[in-house]
Amino acid sequence: MLPERRDREAILRVHFKNKPVDDTVSIEALAAKTAGSSGADLANIANEAAIVAAGRNAKKISNADITEAFEKIAIGPERKAKIMNDHEKEMTAYHEAGHAIVGHVLPESDPVHKVTIIPRGGTGGVTWFLPPEDKSYTSIIEFKDILARALGGRVTEKIVYGPDRVTTGAGSDLRKATEIAREMVIEQGMGSNLRDQVFHEDNGGMMFDRITHERPYSEKTAEEIDSEVAELIKEAARRAEEVVSKNRDSLDKLAKALLEQETLDEKQVADLLKDTVLPEEAKIY
Amino acid sequence: MLPERRDREAILRVHFKNKPVDDTVSIEALAAKTAGSSGADLANIANEAAIVAAGRNAKKISNADITEAFEKIAIGPERKAKIMNDHEKEMTAYHEAGHAIVGHVLPESDPVHKVTIIPRGGTGGVTWFLPPEDKSYTSIIEFKDILARALGGRVTEKIVYGPDRVTTGAGSDLRKATEIAREMVIEQGMGSNLRDQVFHEDNGGMMFDRITHERPYSEKTAEEIDSEVAELIKEAARRAEEVVSKNRDSLDKLAKALLEQETLDEKQVADLLKDTVLPEEAKIY
Amino acid sequence: MLPERRDREAILRVHFKNKPVDDTVSIEALAAKTAGSSGADLANIANEAAIVAAGRNAKKISNADITEAFEKIAIGPERKAKIMNDHEKEMTAYHEAGHAIVGHVLPESDPVHKVTIIPRGGTGGVTWFLPPEDKSYTSIIEFKDILARALGGRVTEKIVYGPDRVTTGAGSDLRKATEIAREMVIEQGMGSNLRDQVFHEDNGGMMFDRITHERPYSEKTAEEIDSEVAELIKEAARRAEEVVSKNRDSLDKLAKALLEQETLDEKQVADLLKDTVLPEEAKIY
Amino acid sequence: MLPERRDREAILRVHFKNKPVDDTVSIEALAAKTAGSSGADLANIANEAAIVAAGRNAKKISNADITEAFEKIAIGPERKAKIMNDHEKEMTAYHEAGHAIVGHVLPESDPVHKVTIIPRGGTGGVTWFLPPEDKSYTSIIEFKDILARALGGRVTEKIVYGPDRVTTGAGSDLRKATEIAREMVIEQGMGSNLRDQVFHEDNGGMMFDRITHERPYSEKTAEEIDSEVAELIKEAARRAEEVVSKNRDSLDKLAKALLEQETLDEKQVADLLKDTVLPEEAKIY
Amino acid sequence: MLPERRDREAILRVHFKNKPVDDTVSIEALAAKTAGSSGADLANIANEAAIVAAGRNAKKISNADITEAFEKIAIGPERKAKIMNDHEKEMTAYHEAGHAIVGHVLPESDPVHKVTIIPRGGTGGVTWFLPPEDKSYTSIIEFKDILARALGGRVTEKIVYGPDRVTTGAGSDLRKATEIAREMVIEQGMGSNLRDQVFHEDNGGMMFDRITHERPYSEKTAEEIDSEVAELIKEAARRAEEVVSKNRDSLDKLAKALLEQETLDEKQVADLLKDTVLPEEAKIY
Amino acid sequence: MLPERRDREAILRVHFKNKPVDDTVSIEALAAKTAGSSGADLANIANEAAIVAAGRNAKKISNADITEAFEKIAIGPERKAKIMNDHEKEMTAYHEAGHAIVGHVLPESDPVHKVTIIPRGGTGGVTWFLPPEDKSYTSIIEFKDILARALGGRVTEKIVYGPDRVTTGAGSDLRKATEIAREMVIEQGMGSNLRDQVFHEDNGGMMFDRITHERPYSEKTAEEIDSEVAELIKEAARRAEEVVSKNRDSLDKLAKALLEQETLDEKQVADLLKDTVLPEEAKIY
Repeated sequence: MLPERRDREAILRVHFKNKPVDDTVSIEALAAKTAGSSGADLANIANEAAIVAAGRNAKKISNADITEAFEKIAIGPERKAKIMNDHEKEMTAYHEAGHAIVGHVLPESDPVHKVTIIPRGGTGGVTWFLPPEDKSYTSIIEFKDILARALGGRVTEKIVYGPDRVTTGAGSDLRKATEIAREMVIEQGMGSNLRDQVFHEDNGGMMFDRITHERPYSEKTAEEIDSEVAELIKEAARRAEEVVSKNRDSLDKLAKALLEQETLDEKQVADLLKDTVLPEEAKIY
Repeated sequence: MLPERRDREAILRVHFKNKPVDDTVSIEALAAKTAGSSGADLANIANEAAIVAAGRNAKKISNADITEAFEKIAIGPERKAKIMNDHEKEMTAYHEAGHAIVGHVLPESDPVHKVTIIPRGGTGGVTWFLPPEDKSYTSIIEFKDILARALGGRVTEKIVYGPDRVTTGAGSDLRKATEIAREMVIEQGMGSNLRDQVFHEDNGGMMFDRITHERPYSEKTAEEIDSEVAELIKEAARRAEEVVSKNRDSLDKLAKALLEQETLDEKQVADLLKDTVLPEEAKIY
Repeated sequence: MLPERRDREAILRVHFKNKPVDDTVSIEALAAKTAGSSGADLANIANEAAIVAAGRNAKKISNADITEAFEKIAIGPERKAKIMNDHEKEMTAYHEAGHAIVGHVLPESDPVHKVTIIPRGGTGGVTWFLPPEDKSYTSIIEFKDILARALGGRVTEKIVYGPDRVTTGAGSDLRKATEIAREMVIEQGMGSNLRDQVFHEDNGGMMFDRITHERPYSEKTAEEIDSEVAELIKEAARRAEEVVSKNRDSLDKLAKALLEQETLDEKQVADLLKDTVLPEEAKIY
Repeated sequence: MLPERRDREAILRVHFKNKPVDDTVSIEALAAKTAGSSGADLANIANEAAIVAAGRNAKKISNADITEAFEKIAIGPERKAKIMNDHEKEMTAYHEAGHAIVGHVLPESDPVHKVTIIPRGGTGGVTWFLPPEDKSYTSIIEFKDILARALGGRVTEKIVYGPDRVTTGAGSDLRKATEIAREMVIEQGMGSNLRDQVFHEDNGGMMFDRITHERPYSEKTAEEIDSEVAELIKEAARRAEEVVSKNRDSLDKLAKALLEQETLDEKQVADLLKDTVLPEEAKIY
Repeated sequence: MLPERRDREAILRVHFKNKPVDDTVSIEALAAKTAGSSGADLANIANEAAIVAAGRNAKKISNADITEAFEKIAIGPERKAKIMNDHEKEMTAYHEAGHAIVGHVLPESDPVHKVTIIPRGGTGGVTWFLPPEDKSYTSIIEFKDILARALGGRVTEKIVYGPDRVTTGAGSDLRKATEIAREMVIEQGMGSNLRDQVFHEDNGGMMFDRITHERPYSEKTAEEIDSEVAELIKEAARRAEEVVSKNRDSLDKLAKALLEQETLDEKQVADLLKDTVLPEEAKIY
Repeated sequence: MLPERRDREAILRVHFKNKPVDDTVSIEALAAKTAGSSGADLANIANEAAIVAAGRNAKKISNADITEAFEKIAIGPERKAKIMNDHEKEMTAYHEAGHAIVGHVLPESDPVHKVTIIPRGGTGGVTWFLPPEDKSYTSIIEFKDILARALGGRVTEKIVYGPDRVTTGAGSDLRKATEIAREMVIEQGMGSNLRDQVFHEDNGGMMFDRITHERPYSEKTAEEIDSEVAELIKEAARRAEEVVSKNRDSLDKLAKALLEQETLDEKQVADLLKDTVLPEEAKIY
């Protein structure tokens, strides 16, 4: 189980004990925005922040050092060595802008925290959503907005370049979306017909015990699960497409800003997307 | 095999031998209410009770110390560090109230022992049912009432917030319910068509022996099993829905009390639910 | 391979060599009634009998000591600590009476040796059938009578308390019955259509060799096997139901005697069941 | 690969080198009749024969000693301790007589070498066929006669006692017959439709390599294989039934002789079965 | 990868370096005819040839010694100890003559190098085809002629003795033919409908990785594969049957010569088969 | 993750540090054209280039040395020992010319870098495409052009020699094409109906965990995947066939040049193919 906010605050205080911080730093605020981080992640953030500060010959760790450290831990270090041609840069900008705009417009999505087309870790760009507070539960409609924003990149490639020009750049988005849709149907009883039942067998304990059992349901149920999952993905793609195509001007503006500035923060994104609308056809509740 | 009442009494006497208890404590009563506890659990209760008593600088262990120890062992320690926002708190209150009201109203369910929205162990809240005595067997109708009360939380979320606002909070309830329904059909010959036969292969002995065998029945039988299990879950959800929606006033009253008091005991619950009715549509026998 | 009668006699003589027995004891008779016991079981009986005799401060082991030892080894020690409420006791009495009456009435079943509602080992009660002699083969009709008597308990619960009040108490009976029915169809070529062929793959030798093979028949054959097995179970339940419902007076008498005396021996059962009849509808040959 | 006749002769000469034999013994003749024995079997026969001779205080090993040793190695020692009741003895006599009569009548079967109802190894009785010479190949019609004689025991139980009185005594016969029928269809391209193709995957070499592959054919092919195998078994049962029922007098005579003498040799069997006929309906070529 | 001709020549020169050969020996010619041999095979041939020469007390290795050595390595040593009865000998002669005649007549088959009914290695007889030169690729029609000649033995048994008298002697031929037909369809995209695609999953690397994947295609595709494979086998059997039955005189002549001489070389076979014709019905291109 | 251009440049500079190069060598240019090489490959290139230079007794490594080294590492050393007959040489020339012409004509394919019919590594010939720059993503239409050029060899064999004369020479091309088509459908959501979803289960972490799960989709979905994959392959074969047959003169010219010169570089290929056209029927966008 991941530590909750108060736990994180305590853990961070331990790790920052012997590391001098300047007065821009608030451990409490850091605890609030690191929802989803493990204890090890928090320790890494503290150490990395000290390294960043040392790198700029500072005596004390600043809030900016901590932010840099946090992003490095959460989504991997920047890979400035990576060279993309102009077309790939533009496509990446539109792809990330697509994630950002769908996440921004749909009401149950977390706010956009940062968008960047500087490659980080194994990705060509990143759109980062941060929940304003720790969440204990996720509802069906929250999952559906997360699905739509996950498909926002692929859908935008399709709208901007045509359906046969979409790329492998969306591979990990699709994997993520499929996993969420399967979790909804198989683990959370959130299918439209397959409600209130799980289709997962957890026989815990002994490793080999698990080998003796197959998929614990019939082929017919497997078909229903596939059909529910496919339906969730299709609905999400349709909603993302509505949002992106009805907000084409904002999309172009955001993509252009990304190409020029490479990284945009929460405020900048919100400003560029202030004219977006939620199309009637994308509403499901 | 878990110890039965007389065994538990003997085990408890051993573990409380050198631990002074005051006269509020009845080992016999404690043995009666710890049905389902293992020998190790009972030892833990005794040790934990001594710690609780020590924590309040008492010379003797009181009945309240033992109760606290028992709950800690049975459902995990309170996690007061966990922060929930108001919506999550309210949803938890309604979810637990749903379990409680369905369990209270259905005649074959054990009585509600305690309801709390203070997170314990890995859960957001707990509704605790205690059988008044050791049970050797479970009948079909008892299983069906247990199924309905297990779905009481999810069903209440649906009634109060709408079908698309139900959350992952019911995940473990659904897993539990699916397991019970599958056990009825696969292990106990309690399906409506699949009667008096088991569909489980226990070739005991050698670990690897088990690998050589697949699911010991045909795809057609797998479909019938799935259909029986789905039917049991649907019937349980329908009954839970009848109970909750026909007792909406009691539900609101109980949820409100939980939000205010966080924990309610057996008597308080019984009092708040004294006006509930068993709707005709929820009766199956 | 289990020892046969003459082997058992030899084994018993070895183990009783240095244990003085009084003149009520006949090793030959003991060998005759321990069909199905392993060499280890026979050694345990001898040791246990010595302990029982010592427990009553006797110099010599009596026939009663040996009988007690034999039952303890064969079906587990009595669990007098177990508390059942009155309803559970009555249900157990009826359940065991059901086994006994079906076994008593059907012509190919072994005679009832003992019935008890004192919990032994992991069970709530026991009905014990003893073959009058070692058997080398089992015929289809013997299997069918064994199946019917195995379902006698569940069927009696249904007749006495109603179909939705049957309990998990029959779990191990159903497992046993399913295993027998599957063995008839899969291993013994005794299906009604699937005759004279086996559907079991024994590729002996090397453990891992077995992994490479799946179920050695098609899905269609799997369906036929399932259908044959289900048919055998249904026929057995129907026959047991005919026997129990057509002998309701005897059933009530036997259950009542069990509640009063807790244990009945062969003679007492035969006496209580002297008016039972074999209903025409339960005859299949 | 098992040793062939000349190899066996050489092996036997080695093992009998230092064991004096009297002039009734012919190593050459022994080599001829031990087709199917492994090198280890031959060594065991020599050692066992020496023990048998020693057991009768003879200085030299006689032909009778060797024959006893050979039978012990080939089908297990006699189990005289086993007690069968009269019904079981009669059923065993009829069962073995059934094997013998089908094997005797069908033209491609090897001749009957010996029939006995003295239990040997794990069986209740034995009918032993010995090929007059080493065989390199087996044809379809030879397999079909072997199948029919393997089912001769079960079929005879059915004719003499009725279809529901057949027993588990035929279990290993049926397993053997199913294996042969499956080998014909899967390994030898001898199905009636599935000709000239094998359905077995032998990817030799590495153990784990084999795990990665499933049944190397489709479900439809699996159904065809099952249907071919079932057809072969049914044809064999039908032919065996024709032979046994059309030669009822010979059957009764042979069974009676077995009950009286327990063991009959090749000549005695041939004499008792001299009036048997091959019914037109059992001919397939 | 097996060594090619020039590689083989180099390897052979190394192994014959210190072994005196007489002037009948040409290393170049030996390299040409050992296509398909591994480096180890070539080393064995050299060593074996030295042994053969020593066995005849020769100072130098002759070409005949090398040929004997080559055959021993390639198809196993002669097993003169094996005794076949006259019928088995005749059947073997016809079986091998069938392989030879089909291979001789079909235009894309390699020429017959040698035919023998002296058992070698695990076989009853051998027909040996040698390609006149190293081949890099195999075409569909070459595979089809190889399939037909592989079935030539079984088909000839059928024509000469009748369809129910075919034997297990063709077992390894059928296994080989099935493997080739499956390779054509699964690995080489050579099915008649399943063209230009492979149906084999090679996830290389890690052993356990392979366990996680099943057959990488659907049941419907499995049926199509089976149907293509069956069609290839049927066509090959039909073509072989046409060739054998339309050249019955040559067949009888060849079988007779084999029975008399036991082994025939390339020239003798060509001479005996000089009147064979390629029937119109066996042509597919 | 493979090193990108700037990473490769840095790695190459490390490995060439102590190896003198003449002024024809540009590390920057080498970094640009080694996209897809691993760090180990780059180290091997540097070492191999030193060996090549030493082989010609040069003091400094030239650009030609590096090119030879690069090709050796990338596609294996030349196997001049391999002897092909004239037909195989011609077929190889046509096969490679087919790859080259399809890759040359289709607009999204990388340019042809080199074509050779000198066997290298395990292949009979090589057509080598080099991307003009590092690519981060691949689009659907790029994949489709890659598929068509992969089938260009097989399709050309069919056009030139007839459908039944195509060979195993295309085996690895087909395997490659099937892998790409499956990756498009299963991993990249690029099927024509199965869009935006993945059908691959990556449960990461623990090895054995993966064993417990089967193919994570139903048989119906497996059929759809197979059908999408087959459709992609068929479309690619059709497009390749259009390109090759509509440019037969260029094909013959290129094959002839290959037979004469054995190896052609980028400029020579472009010159020979300057009259090729993109047929209307091969366009899909």
